Amino acid sequence: MLDRKENTAFFHETLSFWKDLTQPQKNMLLQSMVKKNFVTGESMRSGSDNCSGLFLLQSGQVRAYIVSESGKEITLYRLFERDVCIFSASCMMKNIAFDIFVEVEKETQAYLIPISTFSKLSKEALSVQAFTNELMASRFTEVIWIMEQALFMSFDKRLALFLIEQSNIEESNSLEITHEKIANHLGTAREVVTRMLKYFQNESMVSLNRGAIEILNRKKLEQLTL
Amino acid sequence: MLDRKENTAFFHETLSFWKDLTQPQKNMLLQSMVKKNFVTGESMRSGSDNCSGLFLLQSGQVRAYIVSESGKEITLYRLFERDVCIFSASCMMKNIAFDIFVEVEKETQAYLIPISTFSKLSKEALSVQAFTNELMASRFTEVIWIMEQALFMSFDKRLALFLIEQSNIEESNSLEITHEKIANHLGTAREVVTRMLKYFQNESMVSLNRGAIEILNRKKLEQLTL
Repeated sequence: MLDRKENTAFFHETLSFWKDLTQPQKNMLLQSMVKKNFVTGESMRSGSDNCSGLFLLQSGQVRAYIVSESGKEITLYRLFERDVCIFSASCMMKNIAFDIFVEVEKETQAYLIPISTFSKLSKEALSVQAFTNELMASRFTEVIWIMEQALFMSFDKRLALFLIEQSNIEESNSLEITHEKIANHLGTAREVVTRMLKYFQNESMVSLNRGAIEILNRKKLEQLTL
Repeated sequence: MLDRKENTAFFHETLSFWKDLTQPQKNMLLQSMVKKNFVTGESMRSGSDNCSGLFLLQSGQVRAYIVSESGKEITLYRLFERDVCIFSASCMMKNIAFDIFVEVEKETQAYLIPISTFSKLSKEALSVQAFTNELMASRFTEVIWIMEQALFMSFDKRLALFLIEQSNIEESNSLEITHEKIANHLGTAREVVTRMLKYFQNESMVSLNRGAIEILNRKKLEQLTL
């Protein structure tokens, strides 16, 4: 059970249905929630065999991705502080028939709302169902955006977008990320990433060092994405 | 207003929330529903500016697709008799921020549940929210499947899968469809489709005629998809 005072403000802000719950429902939620810590690289969920419940991120960063039969990956979306990981509760949702994997990118602290609790609340409260709907709609929107990028956008644009996004997340122009990891984010092969990064380097947009990419000309990169 | 006797059985079968509605709610639904006819090629919905409500297909066939800035298309899913088109009500759903287009492939008869009615019911009935959740989860699953195909599957496999699916829908081995239309379904260029179809013809899997594709060796096509 959680320390109430510490947390209710946080839940009020992040769970849109919190204010609509009755006091007994709030108590049930608080009593069943568990705080979990994840280290970088850890899996928060792997495939459909793992259905622990909803994770509410208090701090950290995770990425959700799909994997092909041959092991190719593509990132669907990333979650940060105050985001809710819904597909770790997908067994509860009828008609979800795909596997989304979730990997911890930065040490993460999260509250777990166990599947039994969330399932019970969903049957009792309209606002909980509405919350699930809104969350699913957000993720759907992100996935469609990634799909449009992957299908309709040239790879130089996609890579430039990724580097800018990554630099925003890290709040730095120096990105410590391997070409392999970028390939896994973008659903392509490492060689394709390396080739394009070398082209960016020839154009003086980035400089490549061992295990790091330095953004030299952010403006030129941004122009590429227009 | 609809003729009750004719339709309640159909709604009972297709709308999972029907049995949970009160009699006044059922009456409201019946009174506001409108029957619509669409001809082949007609748009059921184009982009976000069009938000009429939920369409419940009584007969016919439609396809939902996205379009790139340059006009490239890819089919996300198809709907048939008894399916419900949910993205024609997306303005009602918070956090949906993408445009799905819906095109009528075969003359379609559909009931329209106007947005105002569906919105009112969603606020009153938990089972209506659950219905939306399940519908969105189904479409999400289909979109992830298409994304996996488009990103991770070789084009010969994808085209073979499409021809087999199309032949199942048409219940015929003779498909009257242009290479252009297939390209729009699969998110690629016409030339790519033509090239692969010619390869299939050389391998005696299909024969190509003016405006039609004849499947000659279904088994061989199916083996390609494994």
